[in-house]
Amino acid sequence: MNQYHAPIDDIVTALHTAGIDEVLQLPPFADINAGAVRDVLDGFGKLAGEVVAPTDRIGDREGARLDAASGAVSVPQELADAYQQYVDGGWVGIGAPVEHGGGGFPKVVATAIHEMFGSANLALSLNPMLTQSAVELLERWGNARQTAIVLPRLIDGSWTGTMNLTEPDSGSDLGAVRATAVPTDDGRWTVNGTKIYITWGEHDLAGNIVHLVLARTPEAPAGTKGISLFLVPRFHIADDGQLGERNGVHCRGLEHKLGINASPTCVLEFVDAVGELVGPLHGGMNAMFSMMNPARLAVGVQGVSISEAAYQQARTYATERRQGRVAGIDGSAPIIEHPDVQRMLLDIASTRDAMRLLTYVTAIAGDLAGSHPDADERARFQRRADLLTPLAKSWPTDQGVRLASLSVQVHGGMGFIEETGIAQRYRDARIAPIYEGTNGIQAIDLVGRKIAQDAGAAAAELLDEVQQTVDAASLHGDLGEVAVQLAAALATARSATDWVVEHFGHDRTAVLGGACAYLDLLAVTVAGHLLVRQALRVAAAPVLDAGSDAGTDRAVRRAQFFAVQHLLQHPSMGAVTVGTIRLRDGID
Amino acid sequence: MNQYHAPIDDIVTALHTAGIDEVLQLPPFADINAGAVRDVLDGFGKLAGEVVAPTDRIGDREGARLDAASGAVSVPQELADAYQQYVDGGWVGIGAPVEHGGGGFPKVVATAIHEMFGSANLALSLNPMLTQSAVELLERWGNARQTAIVLPRLIDGSWTGTMNLTEPDSGSDLGAVRATAVPTDDGRWTVNGTKIYITWGEHDLAGNIVHLVLARTPEAPAGTKGISLFLVPRFHIADDGQLGERNGVHCRGLEHKLGINASPTCVLEFVDAVGELVGPLHGGMNAMFSMMNPARLAVGVQGVSISEAAYQQARTYATERRQGRVAGIDGSAPIIEHPDVQRMLLDIASTRDAMRLLTYVTAIAGDLAGSHPDADERARFQRRADLLTPLAKSWPTDQGVRLASLSVQVHGGMGFIEETGIAQRYRDARIAPIYEGTNGIQAIDLVGRKIAQDAGAAAAELLDEVQQTVDAASLHGDLGEVAVQLAAALATARSATDWVVEHFGHDRTAVLGGACAYLDLLAVTVAGHLLVRQALRVAAAPVLDAGSDAGTDRAVRRAQFFAVQHLLQHPSMGAVTVGTIRLRDGID
Repeated sequence: MNQYHAPIDDIVTALHTAGIDEVLQLPPFADINAGAVRDVLDGFGKLAGEVVAPTDRIGDREGARLDAASGAVSVPQELADAYQQYVDGGWVGIGAPVEHGGGGFPKVVATAIHEMFGSANLALSLNPMLTQSAVELLERWGNARQTAIVLPRLIDGSWTGTMNLTEPDSGSDLGAVRATAVPTDDGRWTVNGTKIYITWGEHDLAGNIVHLVLARTPEAPAGTKGISLFLVPRFHIADDGQLGERNGVHCRGLEHKLGINASPTCVLEFVDAVGELVGPLHGGMNAMFSMMNPARLAVGVQGVSISEAAYQQARTYATERRQGRVAGIDGSAPIIEHPDVQRMLLDIASTRDAMRLLTYVTAIAGDLAGSHPDADERARFQRRADLLTPLAKSWPTDQGVRLASLSVQVHGGMGFIEETGIAQRYRDARIAPIYEGTNGIQAIDLVGRKIAQDAGAAAAELLDEVQQTVDAASLHGDLGEVAVQLAAALATARSATDWVVEHFGHDRTAVLGGACAYLDLLAVTVAGHLLVRQALRVAAAPVLDAGSDAGTDRAVRRAQFFAVQHLLQHPSMGAVTVGTIRLRDGID
Repeated sequence: MNQYHAPIDDIVTALHTAGIDEVLQLPPFADINAGAVRDVLDGFGKLAGEVVAPTDRIGDREGARLDAASGAVSVPQELADAYQQYVDGGWVGIGAPVEHGGGGFPKVVATAIHEMFGSANLALSLNPMLTQSAVELLERWGNARQTAIVLPRLIDGSWTGTMNLTEPDSGSDLGAVRATAVPTDDGRWTVNGTKIYITWGEHDLAGNIVHLVLARTPEAPAGTKGISLFLVPRFHIADDGQLGERNGVHCRGLEHKLGINASPTCVLEFVDAVGELVGPLHGGMNAMFSMMNPARLAVGVQGVSISEAAYQQARTYATERRQGRVAGIDGSAPIIEHPDVQRMLLDIASTRDAMRLLTYVTAIAGDLAGSHPDADERARFQRRADLLTPLAKSWPTDQGVRLASLSVQVHGGMGFIEETGIAQRYRDARIAPIYEGTNGIQAIDLVGRKIAQDAGAAAAELLDEVQQTVDAASLHGDLGEVAVQLAAALATARSATDWVVEHFGHDRTAVLGGACAYLDLLAVTVAGHLLVRQALRVAAAPVLDAGSDAGTDRAVRRAQFFAVQHLLQHPSMGAVTVGTIRLRDGID
């Protein structure tokens, strides 16, 4: 039950398709080769399968607990032990720079590790996910003291980080933040306010917790332009890194949630808490984006995590459960022999492969944007990462819900029984389209900042690569029809991009009404392109990756399946332009 | 929280579009007019909103409980009280014949009432749903004693009925049933075996429980042809209807489920229980279909119930929650003013309308098949009901999951918090695609029994009606484009039907691989056709139904929205023929 076997071969294949070889040629990774990558993946895969995964059901059942008197939050001991092994293995900082004590691996390797952690225990994986995002923020915006003292302790896992944005009246609209920060005589700030939905906002797994908090300073401009970012530690931090007294930040409640029960979702109250400014005054939103962007990608990866775990459970069940007759099999057949069960499993497998590729490609764009020796290339990959981030956050998380649901369906009646464990996937999956910016917010970000702002230039670069895949596939016998199907989605994606660019300025409402459809269209087109690229690659070099003709056949079938099941039903221009219908009039 | 207002106007509009006026002209309903129908709907709507809905969260939170020592099962007192009011109002038998003490209303009216009950408390509504299905079974197959004694007590609600099919090794494959029935000297039978997933299999809400049980008799043929149906009461029933001793059937466990927590899902153990044969020996499957068919439609209706309740909650939240700016609104705008939120709400509203129409049309086909004075018409409507039943079971339940999920999304972070109540919809919704024959089984039933067996004749009759709607819509300015979009789905549905008919005999595996896609294609085509028909009807007579131009506009927008969002993305021929890909090779 809830067994998880890290799919190292699949992950390695996806990393190569996504372009890790280009990343490993960058100067910072000169000492790392493909073998070293595989070794760390193997090492973490073992930890995820043997140590972390067995804690998943316990965490779901028992959940996080708040002691109301003391305000202390605890999780089941099994999770604390697993987390300690994770920290001891040096995994928190695997993707952080060596100079701050990190492992020095590319972000995409950290992404693959995060995927495995999420499959093994999604709720627990949120803790280092936020710490790692805090590391990215402090790498970019931390002052000397923060870089010297806080950063290494986050990287080595002795402390953890949190992200404090949301307030009761300020969710998607951060301009409405009311928490305040008032300067003190010693150059620090007094922070007051209430933050909600703070993931791992209080716990007993680490020596200190570093809260990164958006707040408004006296006489700051209204809206997002008046928000600044503050580092508020749970325990005061002396200049030598020693911990002092408890700071004025306390957990006032835990949410009772649909899923990710082991992750304490806290109401945090800041009462005259002492904080330090991070980044420029009134530059809080910009600084926080350094944390939000990696977190958005990481949440997208959760869609992969859940789908992988759900797939493994569904496939195992379908192999063991016998029901009904199938020609050529004596007695009751394993249900995996029934065509409709195969259809469901192949839908999960092919979509999961596509979303894994999408998230890895996004991470790789980030690696190349950060470390490519050529400035133009860095800029080009930054455009790519910016464009892909909303896709990589939204599409895999929406699909994760759908695929978890499909995995429940494979289980039949057993799927609805909590002890089976698959229902937890369905519950856990549901948060991912919501947090770190709802998928609707991602779609607005896409059409506004990522498409309209550069008049579709970054999208055109990406879609040109899709065209190359169409051309390559059309020369490959088994993929000729897929090439036609991909080309059709591509044509719609081009038309839709033009339409968004043309209309965003003067008819924004219409564009926003179809923004999610546009995001889905772009994502499914890119996903299909990546799956085809993977099939072409595996077919060209079967021995390198999947290691067999069966592997090639699998990759080809998945591309074919995805094409008829998803590319052919890509969102139409009608769906993208749905905002031209007076939507409000259809609602009573 | 979890407030529910019965949408009587919407239901009445849908009933008229679906064809209730034709039903009310049938001889058995001579005394019932549209006003009487509205009165009973109003009456039940009040009960559902004021008495039943307030019990929904309590039932979810506290659930059903088994006292292990006594085997007694109880539900929270609030639910017992609500159920008693339901019984006292005579609602259980509202659709049963007057001669047995029923209300004499058409099945479609009972269907609308069942929809409202399901919106108010899905878990509780399962209890009368099974009783009503048992009534249909006994009306058709009951002997004189069963008709005289059991039937009236089910109809007046003093007893309840259950459906006992599944065993640990016999779920979708009923041929594997192992429960046994051995004849006794007095013409009765001794039943032994274990049945699982028995909904409301034990409880304290009624004087007796009548279990309808599939079991195998000595020397019966193997498979489904050797199964017979038995009536096994909880308490023995004397010939005067008086209750005797406890029979040998006991609840040995309750399942811990993802949702519908207030509905006790029992493991029932039959130990030398005394039963009576119902219907012919070895004719159990056929007899049980008299219970399964109404239950399948009723489960389909649950998709409507959940979507209606979810829509009401999401719309209320979107009206009250303020976040972000919208031109023309001072301060933070209610999120219903944001285009993407409107898109989600309109998706829920239009799809819900379509599924409501589909289930009502199916119920009306049953009414006409049962009571039309002309034998040819009865046969024609029976074909129609048979064809529509798998569609009406599957499509609304799949969509119910999707729409419940979308309603969670409208709530943002609040959606993931259990206290908000919308998460319960997401959990409850997930069972409907599974029970009463998984949606995969429905698709097999569709392509095999409903399409291939009559070479697509019933489907052709239905699709000809869709063509009439296309023709009518093409003359209506606002619906001209929708007509084109519907016509495209119709063309694919015709091609797909031909393909299924041609290939079912010699390439069944290929057909079964795409059976769910074919079902979806047919369902979305019919759903679009019904929505357009409703828009045409409301536009022609706005005063009769929705009562205003706003009502017309709403119906038109919903048809337009459904067309671009769903008809345009209808499953393609590629998806229907996906079984021609070697699916198994794509799975590792």
